[in-house]
Amino acid sequence: MRLVRFIYKKQIRWGVIDKDGVWPLKNPPYERINRFKYKLSLSRIKLLAPAEPSKIILVGLNYKDHARELKMKIPDEPVIFLKPPTALIGPDEKIIYPPQASRLDYEAELALVIRRKARNIPLNKVPEYILGFTCLNDVTARNLQRKDVQWSRAKSFDTFSPLGPWLETAIRVDNLRIRSFLNGKLNQDSNTNKFIFTVKKIVSFVSQVMTLLPGDVISTGTPPGVGPMKAGDKIEIDIEGIGVLRNTVVRHG
Amino acid sequence: MRLVRFIYKKQIRWGVIDKDGVWPLKNPPYERINRFKYKLSLSRIKLLAPAEPSKIILVGLNYKDHARELKMKIPDEPVIFLKPPTALIGPDEKIIYPPQASRLDYEAELALVIRRKARNIPLNKVPEYILGFTCLNDVTARNLQRKDVQWSRAKSFDTFSPLGPWLETAIRVDNLRIRSFLNGKLNQDSNTNKFIFTVKKIVSFVSQVMTLLPGDVISTGTPPGVGPMKAGDKIEIDIEGIGVLRNTVVRHG
Repeated sequence: MRLVRFIYKKQIRWGVIDKDGVWPLKNPPYERINRFKYKLSLSRIKLLAPAEPSKIILVGLNYKDHARELKMKIPDEPVIFLKPPTALIGPDEKIIYPPQASRLDYEAELALVIRRKARNIPLNKVPEYILGFTCLNDVTARNLQRKDVQWSRAKSFDTFSPLGPWLETAIRVDNLRIRSFLNGKLNQDSNTNKFIFTVKKIVSFVSQVMTLLPGDVISTGTPPGVGPMKAGDKIEIDIEGIGVLRNTVVRHG
Repeated sequence: MRLVRFIYKKQIRWGVIDKDGVWPLKNPPYERINRFKYKLSLSRIKLLAPAEPSKIILVGLNYKDHARELKMKIPDEPVIFLKPPTALIGPDEKIIYPPQASRLDYEAELALVIRRKARNIPLNKVPEYILGFTCLNDVTARNLQRKDVQWSRAKSFDTFSPLGPWLETAIRVDNLRIRSFLNGKLNQDSNTNKFIFTVKKIVSFVSQVMTLLPGDVISTGTPPGVGPMKAGDKIEIDIEGIGVLRNTVVRHG
């Protein structure tokens, strides 16, 4: 099932999407999926980021092929960092190229949304706490990342966390092709079977640090092949069995 | 004026505090301070962290004496990082010493709370966007900070962001003594006149990265003298003209 957050007649709602329409939900989908009996046509709605996170947690290096490319040791624990909720945008929204950036990179990632409040989740219980999976673009001002050493500023600008297009609730994520296309050209092409840390391991690990709340987003790292974007570019994150997250880049102002 | 968030008969409210009581407010204090005509005695309320942030933004090295102590160059721009809202606790709440930490440090900081939505604030307009000032303890698992290089995990545990005891709305912050006491022993003792970056500079800088929202917290870095805490310790952050933020440390579980 594919869950969407969307806007219809100026109201923000959740729904279940298929090829030709959306069934709106009576409530947010965290505890129970309760559809209304009517369907809205896709032409009348606009998709939004499928989450309202209190926090967005990301993982650094998590692909074995990426570690090899960088000649880095395989880490023994995930390195995590945060993006603020104000960085979130949805499918087809604009990534703003800020004046402080001289190089702005895309990073294709598999992300998940948390379903219920959680702390210290055992590995085997993790699936009960996940609402669904989607694509995230960990947009990064590479020059600022290098300058600051700390990654926070480089990754926290408004619009630097495109998420979507929807949440796939029923999918195995241990063997999914993940790709990014810049203006149609393939750049990243890997598979989640190259994860250093599984989704279960990452979610359990994060939950040993902080309480997770419904709607929180956790992203699982990017494969090799990241590269720069410029104003006017179209960037697509494509994950097998989930879908394509498409955004364009615009110059600020 | 001192603004407090508090709990009274299981309801969370804002108020104005003085020596012997609290006047509850009709609404959150962001746009206008509207008191009820009755007063509650201090013995009947429990103070909470005086903010409900969507994000907590902190600054690294920001005291000239600290830079000298560390033999570090004065940076040309602030280095920023984030704590999740789940890290927040109020005055007299417990800091939990997590099992992953082998060294847990206090860091006394002057923090401020944002009053209204803002992006790209010019230096001279910053005061209009600040609701008030308070104390923050940037609790840090030093061993994890060293291991990860990225500071996020080490600073993001639940309870690692004590804030309070209240917001002082009318105070000049360019010359305030800031101290921390561990079990009554003075450890940090500096003054905000040693800031590398002023409050105006920090807030303006952060607002050029991300949209600030009412209730967001920005903290301004810690002076020299940080050190470790252990279970049972009492840690106090004391800022001249504001007050004392007091917390105790407990072992997890």
